[in-house]
Amino acid sequence: MKIEINRNANIPINQQIYENIADRIRSGALSEGEHLPSVRSLAKQLGISLLTVVRVYDLLEEKDLIERVQGKGTFVKNKLLIDATERNVKNNFDWQLSVLDYLPRTQFGAHYGSFENCIQFSVAAICPSLLPNRYLEREIHSTLKKNPNILSSYGPAQGDEELRKTMCKYLRKHNLYINHQDILVTNGTQQGIDLVAKTFIGPGDVVAMEAPTYPAAIDTFRARGATIVPLPMDNDGIRIDHLQRVCEIYKPKLIYTIPNFQNPTGIVLSRKRREQLLMLAQENQIIIVEDDPWSEMFFDKKPPTPIKGLDTNGFVIYLKGLSKTLVPGCRIGLLAANGTLFNRLVASKVNTDLGSPLLTQKAILPLFHSKRMEDHMEKLRFALNLRKDKVVKLLNSHMPDGVHWIVPTGGLNIWLSVPSEWNTNHLLIECKKENIFFLPGSACFSGEPEKHHLRLNFTYLPDNELEMGILKFCKITKKFLSSNRQFRHSSIN
Amino acid sequence: MKIEINRNANIPINQQIYENIADRIRSGALSEGEHLPSVRSLAKQLGISLLTVVRVYDLLEEKDLIERVQGKGTFVKNKLLIDATERNVKNNFDWQLSVLDYLPRTQFGAHYGSFENCIQFSVAAICPSLLPNRYLEREIHSTLKKNPNILSSYGPAQGDEELRKTMCKYLRKHNLYINHQDILVTNGTQQGIDLVAKTFIGPGDVVAMEAPTYPAAIDTFRARGATIVPLPMDNDGIRIDHLQRVCEIYKPKLIYTIPNFQNPTGIVLSRKRREQLLMLAQENQIIIVEDDPWSEMFFDKKPPTPIKGLDTNGFVIYLKGLSKTLVPGCRIGLLAANGTLFNRLVASKVNTDLGSPLLTQKAILPLFHSKRMEDHMEKLRFALNLRKDKVVKLLNSHMPDGVHWIVPTGGLNIWLSVPSEWNTNHLLIECKKENIFFLPGSACFSGEPEKHHLRLNFTYLPDNELEMGILKFCKITKKFLSSNRQFRHSSIN
Repeated sequence: MKIEINRNANIPINQQIYENIADRIRSGALSEGEHLPSVRSLAKQLGISLLTVVRVYDLLEEKDLIERVQGKGTFVKNKLLIDATERNVKNNFDWQLSVLDYLPRTQFGAHYGSFENCIQFSVAAICPSLLPNRYLEREIHSTLKKNPNILSSYGPAQGDEELRKTMCKYLRKHNLYINHQDILVTNGTQQGIDLVAKTFIGPGDVVAMEAPTYPAAIDTFRARGATIVPLPMDNDGIRIDHLQRVCEIYKPKLIYTIPNFQNPTGIVLSRKRREQLLMLAQENQIIIVEDDPWSEMFFDKKPPTPIKGLDTNGFVIYLKGLSKTLVPGCRIGLLAANGTLFNRLVASKVNTDLGSPLLTQKAILPLFHSKRMEDHMEKLRFALNLRKDKVVKLLNSHMPDGVHWIVPTGGLNIWLSVPSEWNTNHLLIECKKENIFFLPGSACFSGEPEKHHLRLNFTYLPDNELEMGILKFCKITKKFLSSNRQFRHSSIN
Repeated sequence: MKIEINRNANIPINQQIYENIADRIRSGALSEGEHLPSVRSLAKQLGISLLTVVRVYDLLEEKDLIERVQGKGTFVKNKLLIDATERNVKNNFDWQLSVLDYLPRTQFGAHYGSFENCIQFSVAAICPSLLPNRYLEREIHSTLKKNPNILSSYGPAQGDEELRKTMCKYLRKHNLYINHQDILVTNGTQQGIDLVAKTFIGPGDVVAMEAPTYPAAIDTFRARGATIVPLPMDNDGIRIDHLQRVCEIYKPKLIYTIPNFQNPTGIVLSRKRREQLLMLAQENQIIIVEDDPWSEMFFDKKPPTPIKGLDTNGFVIYLKGLSKTLVPGCRIGLLAANGTLFNRLVASKVNTDLGSPLLTQKAILPLFHSKRMEDHMEKLRFALNLRKDKVVKLLNSHMPDGVHWIVPTGGLNIWLSVPSEWNTNHLLIECKKENIFFLPGSACFSGEPEKHHLRLNFTYLPDNELEMGILKFCKITKKFLSSNRQFRHSSIN
């Protein structure tokens, strides 16, 4: 267990250590029943006082995350309520337990499970039947037939030039004027986030992000030893008054935001806030990472110009997911940035994997060159909007009182809240018994999680299973909320 | 400029700082003419004495890497000999210069250039005409036609199960018995190295690796703040007596090795040494990373059993490159490991990119299922061996006295040395004038580089260009070595 302490951050050291250990326990990096270091040895390892460690362990115990056994030591608490199959039982390599790692949190990994044979509300993906597979299959055939050497070629580390040029044109339609020299092709936007984190963030750096936000982004920045400062939102997105104070107190190096149909809440950052956010970043010399996975999927009106579209001084690193709404099997994302920030990210990409596969880059090209693209996006918007309406209607009719949700104006998810004394991690256990999966809200918070939310994807399940799935989910939720009070204030994290 | 100091390493702090700055200058991360911090401010930033910084700057000046200008400060030295086009002239984003990064070295990135329209001896790749593109193109067509949903599906983050099962069978032929549950699919072995580094290595950790070695591996471990300890080799690979001392003095956390046709030297680690290496790792609880990019390409006899094949206690993380000899356009690699080391690497893969594209994983499958695979490998071995013979013959006839090389018994490269008073970085400048590229040996060393070597790839150039290319290269080398002595002891790094 390697714990990074940032002595310059305006966050108390005991809180930093508490969050680090709590994150590991919650995400399963520390397994149930695992031995924790003694107070004395942890204090020595971290160069802190015994009292600080005692306080941390007291808090962990209070939060029901650990237990102390007289004469034996301190252990990660065994929670019988957690499904035994989730635990990693295989372990014949004892020496490995002492190998320290730099992986404080993998919340998203814990929920990134199987896509098959279940009622899948957990992944933010789109039903395969809604995507242009047949068309693309034929186009890939003709592309490879014309130029089979695509299979035997490494593309440039920065990405295929033809793809980057095509993307410039595509982005122009979304009010983004970017040179193909300033585009880097990534393996999905997740790699874009990882590249930014590994290049610019390390222990001692503060990252501000919406709370709640995309769990794998938290995981990635935390793995770099960053301190995360949460940014509360209202209906227009990040509250700028709050961000202003955050800038003054914590001096963040980077702000990570999902301005369009935010993941998980669905909130859109208003045009005015985008301008204010950029101005604050400029004043305080903060890098903005603008993650844009599904802005094309608006149900009402197109979202405002991307922040990158307003950026003239290279403050914004823009990440565009391409494959989610088109070809998930290709895992293509784009990163757009300027100046030395961009050059350093390209160098990092070389260190990371020498460049994305040429096959997947060439595979997605035909769609962008054809008129079919706009048609597809139009149809997809329509289909997702119908699904959203259907699901909201079902929730209205079948969810018990006290359950609330934000009706999304775009994107792939609905953010639901149950009364605050209930814990959706516990609801998830009940759902899994019926083969239903969703993303528990706790995974979407960086520090002390709010536990009474959940993210419900409505776009992945086949059309004919959607209604049945939602009805089942409502039924379980109803039963759960009317169940014995023993499950309230639950200890499951 | 972010400099990581490891106060626990047995390497003097001034040497650590010197190497960090020298690496940045050599790999272009610090550009020529760039301002370095003053002695006072660097000392303050790093919490070290003024005298230490003065010593570092003295050494950097002695090595001709920096220059001090009275009344103005300290600058990265301008070297007129370096090709002006290589410099990054574009820079309108001044504020970005003060953004610290975690990218101390990108030597490989500096040489990972274009593959097109040049005499390319720099990349370790295989000529497209030698790869089974036509066959694979047809197979991909039939795979996608049968199952177009491959395009719209995310595979599991660990990698497609069908591919992992197929790989188990393939590895078995190479004396490796691994479960498909213990295999992770990566974007080439480069990502495997990066995953290991980001999961287990951080500032304060020591990594031992062959000297010289694969430059992008050095870059990746250095980017994690690791201290690199070089391991000298003889004809049988890593010298175990030396490694033993390294283990005692530096207590490395990880040993990175390329046992088969080592990159860049072509040396094979003997069976006996493999056993000794593993035993040393076990005694000292050191992780071994065994990188195996091209063991199938033996010209004489099959290399010994992989170290992973001898490993019963989960000490070895095995990285297998698959695409280089088959389908570079797919960028597929495998990582095999056991126990919690493996589980943590899978969690890291999720944080990094949520998994490799399904399309490329499904694309390479048909070849492994067909008899064609063995035929292809057999033919490829034969073709590369012929090329090697041809190139060695040409070098014998046309290289001037004093130039030596190791005749490889497999792999894709020849390691050449010129007399030690010459610098191959300078030879590279001469070669580039004729559009010839090779990898300068200096990139392959982690600390103070030996400058009189180079890596010559003999497998990428089309057959009909190979002879002409080598002859041109010999001619330039001859002229270079007979040129004015001013270029000896050259300052170009």
